[in-house]
Amino acid sequence: MAYELHYWPMIQGRGEFVRLALEEAGADYIDIARRDDDSGGIAPMLERLSDSTNPRPPFAPPFLRDGDLVIGQTAAILLHLGPRLGLVGASEPDRIWTHQLQLTIADAVDEVHDTHHPLGVDLYYAEQKPEALRRATAFRRTRIPKFLGYFERILTANDGTRLVGADLTYADLSLFQLVDGLLYAFPKAAAAALRDAPHVKRLHQAVAQRPRIAAYLASERRIPFNEDGIFRRYPELDG
Amino acid sequence: MAYELHYWPMIQGRGEFVRLALEEAGADYIDIARRDDDSGGIAPMLERLSDSTNPRPPFAPPFLRDGDLVIGQTAAILLHLGPRLGLVGASEPDRIWTHQLQLTIADAVDEVHDTHHPLGVDLYYAEQKPEALRRATAFRRTRIPKFLGYFERILTANDGTRLVGADLTYADLSLFQLVDGLLYAFPKAAAAALRDAPHVKRLHQAVAQRPRIAAYLASERRIPFNEDGIFRRYPELDG
Repeated sequence: MAYELHYWPMIQGRGEFVRLALEEAGADYIDIARRDDDSGGIAPMLERLSDSTNPRPPFAPPFLRDGDLVIGQTAAILLHLGPRLGLVGASEPDRIWTHQLQLTIADAVDEVHDTHHPLGVDLYYAEQKPEALRRATAFRRTRIPKFLGYFERILTANDGTRLVGADLTYADLSLFQLVDGLLYAFPKAAAAALRDAPHVKRLHQAVAQRPRIAAYLASERRIPFNEDGIFRRYPELDG
Repeated sequence: MAYELHYWPMIQGRGEFVRLALEEAGADYIDIARRDDDSGGIAPMLERLSDSTNPRPPFAPPFLRDGDLVIGQTAAILLHLGPRLGLVGASEPDRIWTHQLQLTIADAVDEVHDTHHPLGVDLYYAEQKPEALRRATAFRRTRIPKFLGYFERILTANDGTRLVGADLTYADLSLFQLVDGLLYAFPKAAAAALRDAPHVKRLHQAVAQRPRIAAYLASERRIPFNEDGIFRRYPELDG
């Protein structure tokens, strides 16, 4: 049975980390809200979120349906999919380490979101531009180099091309997405930080060239980055 | 061999979620930075963070050493400890669901932190008070009720006393800590929200009365809440 992914259809957002894993594995999945026919749209997602008959409802999108199981939280979805898609090692130390890296990537993603919404999600960006500038400045100067420097250290201590072991994991795919998003949102700051993180830069390029990922990125299934998502290009925030 | 917990010694912070699990289980552990003798302090933690011989270093505290394994990220630590401490069910659906709840609690904790540091951690609270007030107002009005309402729904759909199944899990302990922190930081707003979440309120009280947790909370091992931690009492932010 096909996996069902439930997520907002107009943005990459947190759902993209799940989409990339499913695409790399060539998994049979349905991006429910993006179906072409009349069954598409976000109504099924909203229904499942408010479904009072489900004793284990997700808190928010994205969530994945795998048979009877409905799993929310991006990192938990990848924890579940990793072994099933062949995107994590077999040993328990490898699995917990891969998950730890995923959670650190998730932290970085949260901080990206806060650069344009430091006062909260109930206000538009236009209502918090001076505050966003202060937060984004600190993020550019100290946090982008810190996160990318950390992953550079991990790659260097491994084989230079993968975060964990010899085979691609979902954490590699997620690091690709983090870098791709930073290059979109903060092209100047990200390019500068990547000069000091050459292995991270090469991983980003190598993942983009994997046959299934390249086909995905060139397809209409890959939603372009835009200013409703997590990674937003507001040039004033890039210094 | 005893577990080694590495975390800042002056705050509950994210380490507290790990401490509560270890305490409830009566596990043999050493809170490294809080040892009474000359071997205490944060030097061992900082050394491990910068240890270039560890190919799998944590990004930040807290981290746990379990034999040869060093695990960072609070939720990953609990994922590892859960089965070992008897604080998670045996089935895979129970485990992924417990983890999903933990990640949602972690999201709430992140949002608490942002109420006093909306512009970032490189500035003091005193330098971002107006912005903190705006962020905290939205957090109080919409986010506290949303998070507590979600957990109320989960508890009600389960047995009314536990988040998952019939036995206590690390997610129950973490929900206790979230509620305890909200009652410290936002006493008025949290009390109001708990009136609409009676099962959450009772879970908080019941966990506090468990023998090992009660002994822990009464001991010097429990660091008092303070204004260097995640949950800070700034009365102006409680409306």
